[in-house]
Formats: sequence, C-alpha cells, structure tokens
Amino acid sequence: MYRIGIDLGGTFIKTGITDRDYNILADSQMDTDLSAGPDVVTERMAAEVRRLAAETGIDWNGRIGVSSPGIIDRKTGTVIYSNNFGWEGYPLKARLEDLLNCRATVKNDAQCAVMGELKAGAAKGLKDVVMLTLGTGVGSGIAVDGRVFEGGGSGGIAGHMIIERNGRLCTCGRKGCLEAYASATALIAETKRCLGMHPDSLIARFCGNDPGNINGKTAFDAARAGDSYAAEIVDDYIDALANGIADLVNIFRPDVVLLGGGISNEGEGLLCPVNERVRKLCYGGDRVHVAEVRRAVLGSRAGLIGAAALTEGDY
Amino acid sequence: MYRIGIDLGGTFIKTGITDRDYNILADSQMDTDLSAGPDVVTERMAAEVRRLAAETGIDWNGRIGVSSPGIIDRKTGTVIYSNNFGWEGYPLKARLEDLLNCRATVKNDAQCAVMGELKAGAAKGLKDVVMLTLGTGVGSGIAVDGRVFEGGGSGGIAGHMIIERNGRLCTCGRKGCLEAYASATALIAETKRCLGMHPDSLIARFCGNDPGNINGKTAFDAARAGDSYAAEIVDDYIDALANGIADLVNIFRPDVVLLGGGISNEGEGLLCPVNERVRKLCYGGDRVHVAEVRRAVLGSRAGLIGAAALTEGDY
Repeated sequence: MYRIGIDLGGTFIKTGITDRDYNILADSQMDTDLSAGPDVVTERMAAEVRRLAAETGIDWNGRIGVSSPGIIDRKTGTVIYSNNFGWEGYPLKARLEDLLNCRATVKNDAQCAVMGELKAGAAKGLKDVVMLTLGTGVGSGIAVDGRVFEGGGSGGIAGHMIIERNGRLCTCGRKGCLEAYASATALIAETKRCLGMHPDSLIARFCGNDPGNINGKTAFDAARAGDSYAAEIVDDYIDALANGIADLVNIFRPDVVLLGGGISNEGEGLLCPVNERVRKLCYGGDRVHVAEVRRAVLGSRAGLIGAAALTEGDY
Repeated sequence: MYRIGIDLGGTFIKTGITDRDYNILADSQMDTDLSAGPDVVTERMAAEVRRLAAETGIDWNGRIGVSSPGIIDRKTGTVIYSNNFGWEGYPLKARLEDLLNCRATVKNDAQCAVMGELKAGAAKGLKDVVMLTLGTGVGSGIAVDGRVFEGGGSGGIAGHMIIERNGRLCTCGRKGCLEAYASATALIAETKRCLGMHPDSLIARFCGNDPGNINGKTAFDAARAGDSYAAEIVDDYIDALANGIADLVNIFRPDVVLLGGGISNEGEGLLCPVNERVRKLCYGGDRVHVAEVRRAVLGSRAGLIGAAALTEGDY
C-alpha cells in the first residue's frame, strides 16, 4: 500500500508518494505561487497528485494527507487563518476531496512534522512526542498516543505560551511568549542588540562587522570562542527554551522532545545544557520520567512524510 | 447499574455509591488517619466499600474509582509521590484490587474533580474541559474527549507552568510557576505584604487589623470597597490567572474552563475580568473558539463523583 502526502509551503508545494514504511518513492516540487489564489493553488495540488499517481502507476488507498500552514479546523480541515498565506476560512480539505474524489486530511505543518519524525525520524517507534521548531517563530507539533494532538479544536499551540509576563512583545500581539525568546528571530535580535551595546564583542568578528550578517549561529559561535557577552545571550536563550520545554513535559510527559529548525543545528552545544536545565525544572523531579531533548532528523522532508502519515488512522 | 467511588483526602476518606447518572445514593466519611500507614489506610478503604455495598444491597459492576492526592502512575495506579501523605511508590491500585477482588482505577484528585464536573457538574455534557483549583496550590484536571488527560504518563500538571521566569519561588522549587501567583496562598501572602507596606489600606478593616485573619477574600473585599492597593493586588492576581488560562486554551482548546477552590467563590467579580483578559490573550483571537471561564459547582463532592466516573470507560 502506498501513501500520498502534500507539503504546502509558502515557497514550494511538495508532493510525494511513500511506501507503507514511509520511504519516499517519488516526489516533486513546484512553486506555490500564492498570488494565483487558494482555488488555483488547490487545483494545482490535485493535478500533481493525479500526475504522480499516474506516472508511478501505484494503487493508492484513496486518501491523501496535507501539511498546511496556519490554524486548521480539526473537523472540517478548513484553513481558519494563515497569516503568511493571507488565507482565512478556506475549505482546503473539502476542495481537495471534490477535486480528487478522495478522503483528505489536513493538519498544520508543525503537526505534520512531528508525525513525520514519529513515523520515520528521530521518534520512530514512539507514541508521545513534543516537537518544537526553532525558526522564524517557534512552531509546535505534539503527538499523544501516536496521533496528532489538537485538544478540543485547534490546540497544541505551545510557541505562544507565556514565559515572562509583560515581557518581550510577540508577533501575536501578546507579551512574553516563548516564541519571543526561543525563536531564531529572537536570538538574532538579541545578538544584534548586544553587538550594538558592545562593539568590542567577538560577535563583530563572526559577522564580519556587519550586523546584517548576524544569524542564529552567530551568538553560539562567539560564545564558543570565549565571548562573555555572547555567552550571556546563549545562556538566556537556553534558559527560556528549557523553561518552555519543562512546561510541556509537565503537561504531556512525552517519550521524547524533539527540536527542529535552524537553531537545532547547534546540536550538542544546545542539547546538553537544555537537557540539564529541563531535568531541574520539571515537576516531580527524577521521580517521574523526564523526556530527553533530541534533535529532529528529517529536516525539510518531515512535512511531506508527516502528511503521508495522516492517511493512516481515523482522522 | 451502580458505581463506587472513593475520595482519599488528607483529612477524610469519603466513600460513595452513585447511580448511572451520578446521583449519590449512599455515602460515608471517616478520618483518614495517615499515621496508620498506607496499608492500613487502604484496608480501611476496602472494608468501607464492602460495608456500603452490603448495607445498600446493590449490584455493583466490580469496578471502583479512587481519587488520590499526588502523582499517580497512569498504567500501574501506583502513587509515585504524594508530598502531603508522605507516600512514595505505594501500589494503591494493586492493593485495592487484591483486597476487593475487583478492578480499581486510581487518578489524581484534580483529575477526578474535572471528571466529576464533566459527568454531573458545570461541564455536564461537554467533553473537553480544563479545570483549575485555586486553593493552597493550583491544581489542574484536564479532560480531552471525555477522558482524563495524562499525556504520555503523569501529565496534565498546569499549576507549575511558568508565567514569570525568575519570578516568585514556588513550593515545587521552581521560580515563577502559575501556582506562585494564582493560588489562594499566593494571594494571601500578597495581601499581607501589602498591609505591611500600607497600614492605612482598607485591608486593615477587612481583617480587623490582624494580618492573621487575612484570607483569600480579603483583597477582593477591600478592592470592592474602593481600596486602590487591594485593587492592584486583585488586578495582578487576575492577570496572572488569565495568562495561565490563555496558555491552556492555546494548548487544549477546551469547551469550557472551570475554576474551583476557595478563590472561585468570588464568582462574577473574578470571572468577568478573567474572561475579558483571556479572550485578549489567546492565540488566533476571535477566529478560534475561546472557552468561557466558569465556576465549578460540585465543590467537595467533585472528587467522589469523579472517582465513580472512573468506573466508566477503558482506563
């Protein structure tokens, strides 16, 4: 049996066919071209599914899974709101089902990513997984008992949990969200601010004296080279992230916590101190299982594989 | 069909028999007498179940539900740790099953309270409910799809989510937990601190000039009488609570949020401003359902009824 998944992103639409073990057998990538509007984008997705299925001659199971940005209605598969896409109330699932005469399941991209890691990545064989994506924002995908966790509706949003009341303004309008401290965007802003205050910092060397070159790696690099200003930024970043993870461990008691996104590339330099701090912050201490924080492994393939995984189970 | 529930508390053990609609048909209360040790306490619970069942002559379903303090192992029903009881690793479920030759289900007292409200209280007929108990601490019971939510293990602990990094020291050892701001204990401490700093505050009148008389109602009373110092305390209390609730709405998207415990007796004076603030703080604004915050109604009966509810479903 084969599975079909679509990863609808802001730049590309990736469509793929996997076998039952989630090996990608065939896939394609095309420009999303949002300017064409949601109906045209959806028609192109459907056409690509038909094309790939015909080209490979597979016998698929009449279901497709779709990874989409934004807040998705759990039952109707409608894109309630996608800020980046400018879509609001678009019935993505219903349109795809009409076009392909199949059963479509649409979930948020972060939810699909965690399902991908669970089926074929860093959490393979596990059932309870929390994944945070440390990129432009802090995305969260949560699996409970092997299924996407959405609570009673469009839940599972962990990036906008508060960690500092009246703290930094978040893009969502609230103050003090985890995202305002643990996203790559936040780390870059702090690194720039620090360089402005301390032009003698090693941060200057690692960005070639151009703040425009600062990225999510710069502070980690400068801290490793012994810069105390950068070390402070990194320490605060790790503390904020560990606090958010501890909250999620208290609530979900997952088997494992996965980190994805650009910042997760720091590897052990990030994971070691985060794990150490999380263990200290969780409720019940070492009497209760505290999940290990690990790096996600599928990268940009997680969404496609996770979308294909939505064709399994009773979504 | 009848259901048997036991509410094991620090002071009393309450045992009760309900009908299928959770009306309490017979119940009893005895001193817990923790000094006798867990085995004796458990034997007395079992004896009371046998006595009540014999006295009422009911035909019960061979299952009992137990509400217990502490962290409970989801699968084994072992009390992993109860600070108040001084129990650690006590196999409560297994012992009760041996003694009564029945199937026992043991859950945390906050989890039982939410199930009680869901079956026969303020959330009757609903399936997705978050309940916070604002008392000595901040207890949390969460139901997802009509069942106790525990995540992958002993999860669902919301009182120890952080709301202020490096904030007030919590009894759990972490700094800035919701409990350190939204418990009755925290409110009382703040009220006392305020009276110390402002002896001219109306707080003095409402506690008869004796800080020892300050309780969870004092600041609310003084604020209602027009005291600006007390109003500040109440406003900060409400802000902290609303922030914690917004985090839980983002994650669980429940049908309703219930407040129990002493502070919930403030009724609309608490609920109105909390609801107003929660609506502003939740992710996605009014595009997504934001649960109403309501008062729990079962009070001290919630644990017993919720325990009885554990005999339903596949725990």
